[in-house]
Amino acid sequence: MKEIRIIELKESIFADNNADADRLRAQLKEQKTFLLNLMSSPGAGKTTMLKNLISRLQNDLKIGVMEADIDSDVDAAAILETGARAIQLHTGGMCHLDADMTRQGLTEFGTDDLDLVILENVGNLVCPAEFDTGAVKNMVILSVPEGHDKPLKYPLMFEVADVLVVSKTDVMPYFDFDLDKLTEYAHMRHPGLPIFPICARTGEGMDALCAWLKTQVEDWQK
Amino acid sequence: MKEIRIIELKESIFADNNADADRLRAQLKEQKTFLLNLMSSPGAGKTTMLKNLISRLQNDLKIGVMEADIDSDVDAAAILETGARAIQLHTGGMCHLDADMTRQGLTEFGTDDLDLVILENVGNLVCPAEFDTGAVKNMVILSVPEGHDKPLKYPLMFEVADVLVVSKTDVMPYFDFDLDKLTEYAHMRHPGLPIFPICARTGEGMDALCAWLKTQVEDWQK
Repeated sequence: MKEIRIIELKESIFADNNADADRLRAQLKEQKTFLLNLMSSPGAGKTTMLKNLISRLQNDLKIGVMEADIDSDVDAAAILETGARAIQLHTGGMCHLDADMTRQGLTEFGTDDLDLVILENVGNLVCPAEFDTGAVKNMVILSVPEGHDKPLKYPLMFEVADVLVVSKTDVMPYFDFDLDKLTEYAHMRHPGLPIFPICARTGEGMDALCAWLKTQVEDWQK
Repeated sequence: MKEIRIIELKESIFADNNADADRLRAQLKEQKTFLLNLMSSPGAGKTTMLKNLISRLQNDLKIGVMEADIDSDVDAAAILETGARAIQLHTGGMCHLDADMTRQGLTEFGTDDLDLVILENVGNLVCPAEFDTGAVKNMVILSVPEGHDKPLKYPLMFEVADVLVVSKTDVMPYFDFDLDKLTEYAHMRHPGLPIFPICARTGEGMDALCAWLKTQVEDWQK
């Protein structure tokens, strides 16, 4: 088993996070690295989806994963099993990452040669939505067991999302989950938001999601 | 349908939240009102569990519910259907409640004649754990679909919990969820933490949970 590298993040020194995030994005554009910020509730299936995504994309793209967590390294350990590069970021109790914290991770990671870096943010539908990490796109995952009313209750998360993944569709028969209502509520927050229902265990919907992401990376590298 | 009262909370003015929480608890002790602070991830089933709990306890206890949310009033509307008193608190984007925000809710609500007030905190496993609300006990709900590794990833939430409810046990066959491992991890954070597996839909485990809560309220009112 590979050793897991853990980076303890420091509090940011920049007062204007939005300007700092723009600087980070410009730097990523120059080195042709696409940064995807992945956000969801705890237990929505971010890591399982990522493992499936990586196995499908790693022949075409050089991929690295930064797993942010308050504590523990269980997610980075899971990603390393796929053969992808991964590090664990510890937020020291903080409920989100901002652009400077993301930069600390990228710098320690060494991402110049990577096409795609995925930042798995802290599991939380509130705080991570408030801070631009410098990512090119924000992906939000909502799992079927959480219910279709979440865009009503966590509006900002769905406003800042560039793509919404609905995970664990295989358990749809056991929950009162209405995909049409979710789509309606999500589009109230963000008209036209692309929505991909998937099941990482069975692979359902993963082809379409991978195709979307690959196009995004290629557009960024042009 | 009853009209839903919505209270817009203001930012707290007290620098020392812990001291303020102790003051609020002393006040609640005097008026013999038990305040339960209910915390979980988004979509763990707090409201569904509450509806079931209220229907079982409302003959014995006078119960009121304060539903905290960033936006929306879907939860207060659901509770009002049970016949219990309920108000909706809006946090104005904030990811948690502290003691003064809780007091604002209690004051507007008028709780002197209530035996049990349940505060449904913002759905979030990070921030609410950091602020003492003045509650007598903290209840944390973890749903089966979220996975048994959550005490490893959100340590503080399980440290501050006085009781852990494992919800949605009816879907256990469809998820890789190990109750023994959850118990082991939860007790690493909080030795001896009482754990109640329940299914609010079928009623499984609800009797034991209600008995626990009733004893807590009676002890408080002595």
